Amino acid sequence: AEGGLDIDALYKASARRGYLETPGAGQRVGQIADPYRLADIVQSGLLDPDFYNVAEYTYELQMTMFQAVGGMDRIAQALATRVTDCLHLQAEVTNILNQPDGVKVTYKDPQGTHELLGDLCICTLPLPVLSNVSHNFSADVSRAIDFVPYIQTGKIGLQFKRRFWEEDEQIYGGITHTNNELTQIFYPSYDYLSQKGILIGYYNFNEKAQRVGELPYAQREQLALQKGQLIHAQYPKEFEQSFSVSWHKQPYSLGGWALYSTEERQSHYQALLKPEHNVYFAGEHTTYLTAWMAGAFESARSVTAAVHSRLSDQRVSYPTVGTKS
Amino acid sequence: AEGGLDIDALYKASARRGYLETPGAGQRVGQIADPYRLADIVQSGLLDPDFYNVAEYTYELQMTMFQAVGGMDRIAQALATRVTDCLHLQAEVTNILNQPDGVKVTYKDPQGTHELLGDLCICTLPLPVLSNVSHNFSADVSRAIDFVPYIQTGKIGLQFKRRFWEEDEQIYGGITHTNNELTQIFYPSYDYLSQKGILIGYYNFNEKAQRVGELPYAQREQLALQKGQLIHAQYPKEFEQSFSVSWHKQPYSLGGWALYSTEERQSHYQALLKPEHNVYFAGEHTTYLTAWMAGAFESARSVTAAVHSRLSDQRVSYPTVGTKS
Repeated sequence: AEGGLDIDALYKASARRGYLETPGAGQRVGQIADPYRLADIVQSGLLDPDFYNVAEYTYELQMTMFQAVGGMDRIAQALATRVTDCLHLQAEVTNILNQPDGVKVTYKDPQGTHELLGDLCICTLPLPVLSNVSHNFSADVSRAIDFVPYIQTGKIGLQFKRRFWEEDEQIYGGITHTNNELTQIFYPSYDYLSQKGILIGYYNFNEKAQRVGELPYAQREQLALQKGQLIHAQYPKEFEQSFSVSWHKQPYSLGGWALYSTEERQSHYQALLKPEHNVYFAGEHTTYLTAWMAGAFESARSVTAAVHSRLSDQRVSYPTVGTKS
Repeated sequence: AEGGLDIDALYKASARRGYLETPGAGQRVGQIADPYRLADIVQSGLLDPDFYNVAEYTYELQMTMFQAVGGMDRIAQALATRVTDCLHLQAEVTNILNQPDGVKVTYKDPQGTHELLGDLCICTLPLPVLSNVSHNFSADVSRAIDFVPYIQTGKIGLQFKRRFWEEDEQIYGGITHTNNELTQIFYPSYDYLSQKGILIGYYNFNEKAQRVGELPYAQREQLALQKGQLIHAQYPKEFEQSFSVSWHKQPYSLGGWALYSTEERQSHYQALLKPEHNVYFAGEHTTYLTAWMAGAFESARSVTAAVHSRLSDQRVSYPTVGTKS
């Protein structure tokens, strides 16, 4: 809240509103800006679900947050270096077929089409991708794969010659929420006061992400610059280049993450939690931490415990460490 | 708030309350803890002014906060290196006397007693210290010096063999507020996951700070350990050593910072803002940013502008740069 009730029970802005003139030395007592009118706040779209992502107030985004040096994908890369020999990249899976005593996976790579026989398969494909793979799963599992919706979402990275948001506006990290197609602008929380900088120029969802995702790269960039300039006038002077992704159009993602309603948690979701004969499903879509890398990690722990239990005939259950109450 | 009203208008805890069992993979939906009872919250002392210091919600402590590498006193040290030739350390001022055409300052250092004649004096002594200096200031200024109250406050640093709050409890920075003599425990926001760590074992004010400040060092340490152990059972096993300061007992501070009521801002405070003939006053106590290093900086800018204006016969006024509205 940007204010509170004063002694006459009138709503007045507090220091949380921010200052037109900051407190300082001598007579400089500080001048608090007027509070926004309720009508303006409502009309801003503040009640829109897009504004949900309110950082430190939410469980997933509470302080203190760490970030991987070099970007969050360094975590996946670091894991990959530990299992390099087991990885087969550039391999597009076309079939996953349960056999009486194992699983047969067919995939295409630059050398041609191959078959792989295994005792078990842990399938981490996003459901919309898996939906295009031939399989012989049961009706319940097949329906879950085909019908769990995934979010449409997109981002654009905008590289600027200098960090004007830091130098001119004292913005160090955080998010600007908008009620236009951008939905959000993210400011980098690393390398403060360094020379160049990259903003996330939009991070949008659903219909907005669909509309923007339909645009060619150059037009996405144009949109991000035009709308962003309404907030930061420095955009045109400082812009260098952009890179945009529309996850629902990425062939091996086909969406941002799984979206479950309360009802779907009782139906489709349940079907994916049990192994389908010799095939296990893992990924954020098999957790209550959908969308997050943390969900993928938790699902890995869960499936690993299940596989270990099955193969060792021991009772190993997830979570394998307790929580404090 | 740790909760909200549910569909039946009953107060229920939300994810903000925290989880007894965190959300995870498979059936692990997450179990939110019960909300605290209103009576327990009131009895905890949450309404006590000591709890004011609520971090990111207050103007002075809003995100994003930077910290100087090596500690905040590195800022003063860095400034000192720029004016080494002008500094005279270990010099205790005993007299500040306005002369018709300058100021005469008397001070004692290890070599004896000395007099210093200057055109102007910028006096940054805390008021309780200045109160013990002989001067020939006017009655208004003299009263302000003698009667503006300074806060009694103390801190203790507790060094531990390992960062159990990080390793065992996933606490990375922040504050635990208590309703006992400790008032607060601060967790370090630097060198995360390094080997040893230092907590601020208490940071208290007023009567609590006075009582604890009266104790010998060993008993302050004992108090911090006994009360802190109620929160972190690891204290006795991991403790190494302590260092405590009671600012109102430090000879050249005699208090934490100036405390002004609204009335005193109109009386005593005003007397300190004008130069007293050839003597200017500066420091956090001459600002609306009392207690903070930022106040000292602002007062320096203000007095520098005033002195420059006087000596150059130019109209130079603080602040020397405008603010955006």
